[in-house]
Amino acid sequence: MMARYKLTIEYDGAPFVGWQRQDNGPSVQQALEDAVHAFTGERIDVHGAGRTDAGVHALGQVAHIDLAAERPTDTIAAAINFHLKPQPVAVLGVERVAGDFHARFSATGRRYRYLILNRRAPPALERGRVWHVAVPLDATAMADAARLLLGRHDFNSFRSAACQAASPVKTLDRLDVSRRGDTIEIEVAARSFLHNQVRILVGTLQLVGRGRWSRRDVADALAARDRTQAGPTAPPQGLCLVEVRYDLRAGDGEDAEIAGDDE
Amino acid sequence: MMARYKLTIEYDGAPFVGWQRQDNGPSVQQALEDAVHAFTGERIDVHGAGRTDAGVHALGQVAHIDLAAERPTDTIAAAINFHLKPQPVAVLGVERVAGDFHARFSATGRRYRYLILNRRAPPALERGRVWHVAVPLDATAMADAARLLLGRHDFNSFRSAACQAASPVKTLDRLDVSRRGDTIEIEVAARSFLHNQVRILVGTLQLVGRGRWSRRDVADALAARDRTQAGPTAPPQGLCLVEVRYDLRAGDGEDAEIAGDDE
Repeated sequence: MMARYKLTIEYDGAPFVGWQRQDNGPSVQQALEDAVHAFTGERIDVHGAGRTDAGVHALGQVAHIDLAAERPTDTIAAAINFHLKPQPVAVLGVERVAGDFHARFSATGRRYRYLILNRRAPPALERGRVWHVAVPLDATAMADAARLLLGRHDFNSFRSAACQAASPVKTLDRLDVSRRGDTIEIEVAARSFLHNQVRILVGTLQLVGRGRWSRRDVADALAARDRTQAGPTAPPQGLCLVEVRYDLRAGDGEDAEIAGDDE
Repeated sequence: MMARYKLTIEYDGAPFVGWQRQDNGPSVQQALEDAVHAFTGERIDVHGAGRTDAGVHALGQVAHIDLAAERPTDTIAAAINFHLKPQPVAVLGVERVAGDFHARFSATGRRYRYLILNRRAPPALERGRVWHVAVPLDATAMADAARLLLGRHDFNSFRSAACQAASPVKTLDRLDVSRRGDTIEIEVAARSFLHNQVRILVGTLQLVGRGRWSRRDVADALAARDRTQAGPTAPPQGLCLVEVRYDLRAGDGEDAEIAGDDE
């Protein structure tokens, strides 16, 4: 009898071509599928909540798997982690879920964190986990501009050309910018995101931080619904998928097409 | 005319045999000396505040150097950082100091941080920066036991056999244990430390966290003044030298022999 499990997963994105299986290198998804195979002998699909790009990290990616038979959740976690070694991927928790649970389509919220190291010196201890911006950024101005982007908007200016989502309309629930010492932390939450949305938001706010763009420029970029009018795509290594939520509330319909959380 | 400079330095200890130059592999000191040579053509000694062991990190190591001529501090930092690439070492700041400033002997305080990742799953994103302890630790019990060790004591039980300090008497100004989620953070501050002192303190408190040792066992270990009576030496990768202080207050004489901050 088939049993479905929800996995919460942490990974360092650096050595991977991204979450999704691809021909051109190792993926997190493949690493997990191989580990499950080594453990159970089963060739299964691991379905992730979001397809993180190459170099993007996760502290709380979620995926589901179907196993041919029920097994203790602790055993599943320990066995997959054993077979994942030495790759920087770890299953933090396993839960038995109903057959209609879907890591991607049941998700009601995603939270990402983006870290900018804002100082002259390059990163040493945090290399590969931050975007290094050497010129001083005004985090308060960035936070002010960020508020313009909250709520429901057509984010067509803030998605990559490759984005496959049918609709560019998304609702940003949170876009907080704060500074702690040399680090600027940007916390972003939404039901789901367009491809590269967080990285383009960060690349745009960074222009405000440098003093090159005003709040008005950000408002204009949003209104333009044109990718060429927003800022650059911030590099992947500053981005981390922190949490995926599965609330009980019914979907609000916005993302009937949520083919993507493709950040 | 010779000019002395104080450098504040960050590094990832993983690829190094430690701070100090050694024959068996790359050291942080050598990396800095080579970078200064590439920049100025001068073969100089970089004098560090503390000799961190292999694998130990720093967010705020301090060192001093003497250059043959005065140069702008921003230029020194940028040039050394340029020549350090791609090694994970960065000069965060440079200050011109008086000729009697000594990174090691003028230091009046060192602060270290030790991170334990306390969960079943191995580290993925924080691998190489934490000690993974899979069994649940009672951080409150660890914090209670830590208070016994505060203040001035003979720490002979808490130094490695290789420790060269003439006196085992040190004053612990701070030994705080706190938990945030799966991470237990131990903050330790003193004027100076014995060799491996922080790591043996952590290895001992961890026994309390596991419930194997009581507060009384810790008090007994301290009183024994015998390395074999304390806990194991915690692994290096959880340790980070966070800050070195240079206060104006006169030395209190305790460390007239402070040949070591050898953590």
